Amino acid sequence: MSAGPGTPTRHPALPAAGSGSLVAAVEERLTDFFASRAPLVEPLGPVFVDAARALADFVLRGGKRTRPAFAWTGWLGAGGRADDPAAAAVLTACSALELVQACALIHDDIIDSSRTRRGFPTVHVDYEQRHRDAGWAGDADHYGTSVAILIGDLALAWADDMTHEAGLDAAARARFAPVWAAMRTEVLGGQLLDIHGESAGDESVAAALRINRYKTAAYTIERPLHMGAALADADPDLIAAYREFGTDIGIAFQLRDDLLGVFGDPAITGKPSGDDLREGKRTVLVAEALTRADATDPAAARLLRESLGADLDADRVARLRTVITDLGAVDAVERRITDLTDRGLAALDDSTATAEAKAHLRKMAQAATARAY
Amino acid sequence: MSAGPGTPTRHPALPAAGSGSLVAAVEERLTDFFASRAPLVEPLGPVFVDAARALADFVLRGGKRTRPAFAWTGWLGAGGRADDPAAAAVLTACSALELVQACALIHDDIIDSSRTRRGFPTVHVDYEQRHRDAGWAGDADHYGTSVAILIGDLALAWADDMTHEAGLDAAARARFAPVWAAMRTEVLGGQLLDIHGESAGDESVAAALRINRYKTAAYTIERPLHMGAALADADPDLIAAYREFGTDIGIAFQLRDDLLGVFGDPAITGKPSGDDLREGKRTVLVAEALTRADATDPAAARLLRESLGADLDADRVARLRTVITDLGAVDAVERRITDLTDRGLAALDDSTATAEAKAHLRKMAQAATARAY
Repeated sequence: MSAGPGTPTRHPALPAAGSGSLVAAVEERLTDFFASRAPLVEPLGPVFVDAARALADFVLRGGKRTRPAFAWTGWLGAGGRADDPAAAAVLTACSALELVQACALIHDDIIDSSRTRRGFPTVHVDYEQRHRDAGWAGDADHYGTSVAILIGDLALAWADDMTHEAGLDAAARARFAPVWAAMRTEVLGGQLLDIHGESAGDESVAAALRINRYKTAAYTIERPLHMGAALADADPDLIAAYREFGTDIGIAFQLRDDLLGVFGDPAITGKPSGDDLREGKRTVLVAEALTRADATDPAAARLLRESLGADLDADRVARLRTVITDLGAVDAVERRITDLTDRGLAALDDSTATAEAKAHLRKMAQAATARAY
Repeated sequence: MSAGPGTPTRHPALPAAGSGSLVAAVEERLTDFFASRAPLVEPLGPVFVDAARALADFVLRGGKRTRPAFAWTGWLGAGGRADDPAAAAVLTACSALELVQACALIHDDIIDSSRTRRGFPTVHVDYEQRHRDAGWAGDADHYGTSVAILIGDLALAWADDMTHEAGLDAAARARFAPVWAAMRTEVLGGQLLDIHGESAGDESVAAALRINRYKTAAYTIERPLHMGAALADADPDLIAAYREFGTDIGIAFQLRDDLLGVFGDPAITGKPSGDDLREGKRTVLVAEALTRADATDPAAARLLRESLGADLDADRVARLRTVITDLGAVDAVERRITDLTDRGLAALDDSTATAEAKAHLRKMAQAATARAY
């Protein structure tokens, strides 16, 4: 799962005077929350204290805090004010999205058999290594996976606890809860479709778009904005506009990410060039290429199907890029990105969001979808 | 993880006239909740609908509904009345414990590499089999594990959603939330200690008791009773009494279960005789035996350490039973059970719980801790 579109680290309206950037404010809320768990965690002893610390380290180690940023901006844009006494509770509830994200990443790293994240061993690899270092009997891999399942579960449970303890009033809480529920169900469903599609070899554009819709767009932009709007008691028109914007920009972001996964500069993406092809990811880009190749170029179709998920050298990656481009798949994806971005921005422009939020969301949308290779 | 102590299927005070037994009422709440997810699940398409159905089937397939029964009894015993208009919301919140339990069981079955549960394939084995039956490429085991991680996550998220949507008033919700939070953190911590202790080969009685405290007692009895009491706005003395009872009886239940795992009649336990020895479980019984053997009988200590986790035939199991008994470990565990049960029942007797709840909890405690082999 991608960390999500880039967001500026400084937010135009800060949650409270003196709290620094939004990223810092979110991390402060998370740090406070982890500290508040001590009375629950410590009675279980040092092994659990250590696991809770591993989770806190994972969450606080970095990340762009994209989801809290969209939620907070959604709240401000719907009339929330950073100097409102309720603002602190809102920011805490928005920050809890990072704990859902921690569960998603920790469990996704098991599912994808990923060994590193943000330059550190993934949680399951960390615990696998602890098992090896201790020289314990039994299967170190299975131990690492088992501990990481539980630490991910803990993150998911704590995400809820953090929203309960945020200090929202009952009415805000009631408006927030169904959006929070939808977001969690959708991201888990999106991940499930992704795994299923990869195994089942679903090559359709529709399947890839559906995964983008739920795994990325709803989870990263649409529902966070919706949450902010719900907390601000926004009218249904603004909520609809936010959701349109979030869905469109979220899918466009994922399409941009798919292009970067094949054509991106490793110096910018931080991943070896063409890595998505080696992993055999079923992206819209690949689906477009396959659909076109099946219709016009059987040899290209065969080459693509043989190559996806294979151990490709640089020459083969270069050849695949040419094939994908020549089939018109890149242009088709670029057109989708442009159309989606235009539609999303139009929905935002026509909305009643504050001018400041519109400007900020436009900037976030452009950062997430702009050509960068 | 054990399904928990046995509870009678008929409850002295039913949640509402005509709703049948408590078990049936809990299952009705769960069925309604699953139906209520359709608008969130269906837009993602048939693959996710099918996964949600797999979760519902798992939850509704059976089980003694032990945790909801303790929570509901705790509420009644603290003055809750089945004819109160708030009773339906309380029963729904209590029933949500079964979704936490679904997550615990589904993830535990991955961790324990269990192939069957309640006579059906475990969730990860079910999806592994679907992968094989479909003849998909890739690793069927890993696919099964991946899907089961996500379905367990869904159960955990839905547990929370079910409590939000139960219809509790804001004050009840505020009293309930910290107990719900403690319960989830404690059971995950207890599972983590269990995995760690097994790998690290922690042989102490204290370590085994601590796992029983959090993984079984707090999760199964103490916190469910506490939840019911909190929902009823019980006074601190009754809450303290419930927690004492729940902790003591919960640990005593686990100790009884440990004895059954070594000495139980397969016809009653449903598991091959001596299975806990073959699995190498680090129970209080085993810890007592090892501590005593180390002090008095090095040959017995060696035999025990060589046998735990090994593939034991019936003769070897019989010999180990004799050794464990002769070391005095069985008597020591029986004494602990008696002491804990006495203390737990005394706390209950001295409490202000209603006479009906006391009678019912006493019966549940006796069913959970009585000698049965």
